[in-house]
Amino acid sequence: MLSNKIIINFCPTGMVPTKNMTPHVPVQPEEIIEQTHEAYELGITIVHLHARDENGMPTWKASIYRDIFEGIRKYCPDLVICASTSGRVNSEFEKRAEVIELQPDMCSLTLSSLNFPKQASINSPDMIQKLAQKMSQFGVHPELECFDLGMINYGQYLIRKGAIEGPYYWNLLFGNIAGFQANFHQMGTAIQSIPENHFISLAGIGLAQLPVTASAIAMGYGARIGLEDNIWFDSEKRQLASNTDLLKRTHKLLKVHEKEVMSAKEFGNHGFYNENN
Amino acid sequence: MLSNKIIINFCPTGMVPTKNMTPHVPVQPEEIIEQTHEAYELGITIVHLHARDENGMPTWKASIYRDIFEGIRKYCPDLVICASTSGRVNSEFEKRAEVIELQPDMCSLTLSSLNFPKQASINSPDMIQKLAQKMSQFGVHPELECFDLGMINYGQYLIRKGAIEGPYYWNLLFGNIAGFQANFHQMGTAIQSIPENHFISLAGIGLAQLPVTASAIAMGYGARIGLEDNIWFDSEKRQLASNTDLLKRTHKLLKVHEKEVMSAKEFGNHGFYNENN
Repeated sequence: MLSNKIIINFCPTGMVPTKNMTPHVPVQPEEIIEQTHEAYELGITIVHLHARDENGMPTWKASIYRDIFEGIRKYCPDLVICASTSGRVNSEFEKRAEVIELQPDMCSLTLSSLNFPKQASINSPDMIQKLAQKMSQFGVHPELECFDLGMINYGQYLIRKGAIEGPYYWNLLFGNIAGFQANFHQMGTAIQSIPENHFISLAGIGLAQLPVTASAIAMGYGARIGLEDNIWFDSEKRQLASNTDLLKRTHKLLKVHEKEVMSAKEFGNHGFYNENN
Repeated sequence: MLSNKIIINFCPTGMVPTKNMTPHVPVQPEEIIEQTHEAYELGITIVHLHARDENGMPTWKASIYRDIFEGIRKYCPDLVICASTSGRVNSEFEKRAEVIELQPDMCSLTLSSLNFPKQASINSPDMIQKLAQKMSQFGVHPELECFDLGMINYGQYLIRKGAIEGPYYWNLLFGNIAGFQANFHQMGTAIQSIPENHFISLAGIGLAQLPVTASAIAMGYGARIGLEDNIWFDSEKRQLASNTDLLKRTHKLLKVHEKEVMSAKEFGNHGFYNENN
């Protein structure tokens, strides 16, 4: 959906960046809460969360997600909270799906298996459908994550089947070596494949974050911003970014385009809040 | 061609804006020279010129173009000068082609007939080929202007035929009601149709100027900027732009993307200077 109100999907942590890679990545719950609060004050629509354990390694544990959600709800009461159900580290359904029981507003639903540069990430059809079903059961809206065209098609298949109910929010990621490339043709082809009344954000992986999200904002699509996708501020990889640096640059671009962030409340009221809360 | 050095094609005047529409549009030679000089100081690569007569109406007359070229060469000695051969007002070959004899570096070559919102603009195959032939004879490089896919194809046909020699520079215009629309899919499809080692700028007509050129800069393509395409600074059409306003905003975007303008000299030395000069 094209709009002057731009969805900013804030992804502060992810599964890959470590404190060794960048001191700016928030990994402990209090760090994630603090940086999300700062981002919320700057202006974001959604926070896309990954939890880490006490050693900073990715974890599926609802007990840790619970701490993060509570802190964020305290400081950012209307922020749309989206939690990862990634299978990149833990592949069992029970683990991946545990966070759904906490009833965040949204959870990620990656719509096929894919390769990252050094590993496969497996999301079998059965796994995807079970995750979607459990989300539906707990009032959680799926964040439809797509790294390639087939994933968009699979999402549309699930919609036709009634396995996913609207409203629909797609997060399209460009720049993974075995997926969508970060160019107009592939960005446009992806967008063209999605009905006009669905919500869409674009993400760029690594150095593609800035060109993809800047183009998205210029054209009126949402943008996913944060260290999960890109830890560098500059294109020469000399200056490590903070989440705040990245968001401030995003807001500078919004201003050039006379656009504003879609408030969490506005997005939530389009039907993305979990009504069980 | 993708690059960190961005071609800025400055189009200050065009054929449509009048002083009644905006006081900022330069129409007399001295105004065009002055605004081009100011743009050159800010940083541009090419100036795309249209001449007007003493009443501010479009004219083909070489005598007026000569004054403009002389002034620009005096203040901006290495700027790449491109003159229009548009048939929108004057349709005869002799008139459209007169400016070619002045041997600017480049002249526009629109690669088919098309409709604008209220009129047809006729460029017959014979006219296009005669213009290309005369340009070749006078050492003038064509600016390959395309408003739709068929024009790109016709340009490639002329290249295969040997009617146009390299290096090649394409100006792709998005947002005319009867041509390319200003979205990623059509921008990407157009770019995809052009060999990777050709130079490409994108232009957006009217309110499409900012989103199209901002996306172009984000992705590493050239951008055409100026009042010829768009007289407004804001998207609500409340604030009339000056050429300098538009260029300053463009430079702000270049800075965000850590990109710089390709100097006229660098572009000219890629083979776009008229060697007869």
